[in-house]
Amino acid sequence: MTREHSLSQIASKSEDFDRWYVDVVRRAELADYTPVRGCMVIRPYGYALWERTRDALDDMIKRTGHENMYFPLLIPESYLAKEAEHVEGFAPEVAWVTHGGDKELDERLAIRPTSETIICSMYADWIHSWRDLPVLINQWVNVCRWEKRTRLFLRTTEFLWQEGHTFHATDEEAAAEVDTMLECYRELAEDWLAMPVIKGRKTEAEKFAGARYTLSIEAMMSDGWALQAGTSHHLAQNFTTAYGIKYTDRTNTEQHPFQTSWGLSTRIIGGLIMAHGDEAGLIIPPRVAPIQVAVVPIARSNDDDAARLVEEACARLEREAGPDVRLRVDRREGLRPGDKFAHWELRGVPLRITVGARDLGDGQVTVVRRVDGGQTLEPLEGLGARLPDMLAAAQVATRARAQRLLDERSVDVSSLDELIAAFAERAVFASGPFCNLDECEAAVKAAVHAATVRNLRADRTADGAPCIACGRPAEDVALI
Amino acid sequence: MTREHSLSQIASKSEDFDRWYVDVVRRAELADYTPVRGCMVIRPYGYALWERTRDALDDMIKRTGHENMYFPLLIPESYLAKEAEHVEGFAPEVAWVTHGGDKELDERLAIRPTSETIICSMYADWIHSWRDLPVLINQWVNVCRWEKRTRLFLRTTEFLWQEGHTFHATDEEAAAEVDTMLECYRELAEDWLAMPVIKGRKTEAEKFAGARYTLSIEAMMSDGWALQAGTSHHLAQNFTTAYGIKYTDRTNTEQHPFQTSWGLSTRIIGGLIMAHGDEAGLIIPPRVAPIQVAVVPIARSNDDDAARLVEEACARLEREAGPDVRLRVDRREGLRPGDKFAHWELRGVPLRITVGARDLGDGQVTVVRRVDGGQTLEPLEGLGARLPDMLAAAQVATRARAQRLLDERSVDVSSLDELIAAFAERAVFASGPFCNLDECEAAVKAAVHAATVRNLRADRTADGAPCIACGRPAEDVALI
Repeated sequence: MTREHSLSQIASKSEDFDRWYVDVVRRAELADYTPVRGCMVIRPYGYALWERTRDALDDMIKRTGHENMYFPLLIPESYLAKEAEHVEGFAPEVAWVTHGGDKELDERLAIRPTSETIICSMYADWIHSWRDLPVLINQWVNVCRWEKRTRLFLRTTEFLWQEGHTFHATDEEAAAEVDTMLECYRELAEDWLAMPVIKGRKTEAEKFAGARYTLSIEAMMSDGWALQAGTSHHLAQNFTTAYGIKYTDRTNTEQHPFQTSWGLSTRIIGGLIMAHGDEAGLIIPPRVAPIQVAVVPIARSNDDDAARLVEEACARLEREAGPDVRLRVDRREGLRPGDKFAHWELRGVPLRITVGARDLGDGQVTVVRRVDGGQTLEPLEGLGARLPDMLAAAQVATRARAQRLLDERSVDVSSLDELIAAFAERAVFASGPFCNLDECEAAVKAAVHAATVRNLRADRTADGAPCIACGRPAEDVALI
Repeated sequence: MTREHSLSQIASKSEDFDRWYVDVVRRAELADYTPVRGCMVIRPYGYALWERTRDALDDMIKRTGHENMYFPLLIPESYLAKEAEHVEGFAPEVAWVTHGGDKELDERLAIRPTSETIICSMYADWIHSWRDLPVLINQWVNVCRWEKRTRLFLRTTEFLWQEGHTFHATDEEAAAEVDTMLECYRELAEDWLAMPVIKGRKTEAEKFAGARYTLSIEAMMSDGWALQAGTSHHLAQNFTTAYGIKYTDRTNTEQHPFQTSWGLSTRIIGGLIMAHGDEAGLIIPPRVAPIQVAVVPIARSNDDDAARLVEEACARLEREAGPDVRLRVDRREGLRPGDKFAHWELRGVPLRITVGARDLGDGQVTVVRRVDGGQTLEPLEGLGARLPDMLAAAQVATRARAQRLLDERSVDVSSLDELIAAFAERAVFASGPFCNLDECEAAVKAAVHAATVRNLRADRTADGAPCIACGRPAEDVALI
């Protein structure tokens, strides 16, 4: 086996980011392609990462008063068709079931691309009175959107996500809900996944099919691209009118409720990989890391006494780390320590502890931090109990490093010329006053190849400064 | 609204068990029918019950060394077809995807009815050496099997389940895995869901399509029917040969690994409902109950002081119950206490606490246990801290009651005549020596209408006693 084909070998991140991404995902055994066009298999290490991400968000969803439920995978074609913008937006991406067993169906069934239509159909029967509101529900499911070009986690025909759906008596309450859930997404991204994100509103061209407006969090990848990592939609009364959902308010008048929906998918795992990874592979923040500490014993096979001491130290670490630290001792035989180091580096395990006979003679082991390679000799005594603090520090360092990478690539611009100059050397995150006209969005795209208006930042305002495209006074600051 | 149509009204369990079942499921808001043929919607209360069941089993699956992952929903037709018995067994039930967007596909895709075929296709690439074994994986997913007649939870076209899949070097290791997982299912059914079950082996006619043998747990419903609540299959080398999965053993010889699969679905929620429910509705064992304690305040609207005292007591219970007790104070306005009692009885909440001004004068509240209606006056002082013990006692009582119902209906038989006599009055669970020939299974079905051989009991042996059908010496005891 040549060095190029060795399992731990991955493409250079700085030279070929796209190949680096696929190599990392496949060789760290997060996910892989399948013989099923456009569909991926999520392998145990990747699924454990998704489980931790999912559980963190699920806690937030429940903490904010929502309940989980489950709607059918299959949606009759006629249900999809009731909201005009919606069906137009999704029809080209739908996988259609036409046969059950050997019988052709009377009506085609769509595999859900999202569930607004079936949910509205059901709640038309369940909502009657103001007492039935608000409805605050969520589901964790698979959805299908037919894709021609696929990338593991980032763009696949089938993906896993949560979709929240709520109904409210007032427009303001729905708007507050849209904000609340976007804030949960920010919390997940920043506090758990250690990814800095920018909140904002999508432009008209990019909003959800059928929504009044769409908010998003945009994460900045270390290659300079932005990733839409979660969206929250104000649906106003568009669907509740189309699907005939009505309630009687306190004055006994019939009203259509206001609706929201919000979703976050396995795509965010792709974001995590791109936001933190380096030339050696993944860097996973400790709070979501399936394995937080990898312990590598080093003992020469010809020295039984040393091997016994090393094993005792490893067993002690296992014991003293306790159930809250996810620690794995790598006892695999027939692998050199260097191969084991590379194995756990590729997988982004936050801390590696090397247990060698010589250091043990001084009561010490070596701890290496993945995010910055920082290496320290630590007394074995009490190390298990100190691991939670060391992991918390690694979480902070991972977040700080991602923020630094973002800041280095962020520039403010006040004109298209400045925008062009900013993008001249490499992809950046440019922020500038923007009036949110379609023609100005087109002008931005024409000025810089592959530049897109990601969102209109929630954290900044233009205060009437001239739009970078047309020069008219602008309210918003666009993230480009 | 007439009394018959009132929301809390359900059919009589003893008079019309089938209607009782549907009424309970729909009116307790566990699940409902949808406009999508054969598919159900699982509502928040039902989904919370499934989440607790799922989490308990997921812990066991991980405790026994398995990891979760995720395989695609869609399986190309050619993959299904590689194992002959398997495709014959499942083809009539498959939902077929023929179009992606507006393009017809080159090859039809099946919505997974189960995932052996795609999993074997992937592991053919991933298993090479004895070092790669065992493979111990599981996934929690939705599957579709086209059904003509559907019953909520029990038989639906789409259902949720876990499917475990393992590969082993030896036949014995695979057999041990089949046993281990059946034992997990027993533990879930008996220790969490409080349902007594009987472990055993399915007859040849009833085993999984493509398996060497299938083990099952059979739960006994309170109407006398049995429910297959979980199955564990020894697949031998049938699939690994058909899909070309090979590994090199320690002597450098190529071998096909031995395989198992095992699954448990949302059907078990149907079993839980039928095993415990009574004329008033659901009875849910505390360990899986979404709400364990319902607190109903009773205060006349014309007495502000009393209302304040009652509310203080309710708030104190909320506070002192702590985070491990799932307690809900029913503060809904405009409902009479009797309606609230019926509401929580229908939903099977294990304990109800009535907080009334008069009892509070003596520092007491009334606690009613759902499973047996047992009612006690309890001092409010320290009640929150005593709730965990009271819930544990209710769990034991629920299990004991289900066991009693089962014992009352169980009989041993030694001939077809005795079998006929046993079934003469009502459905029972008959156990008798059985030689496991197809003709004897047919004779049993002919003798008693609707009787089926559920499994060959793992806990008993016939020791050569004559088969109840043919009289030849039998090894096994059949559960009929």
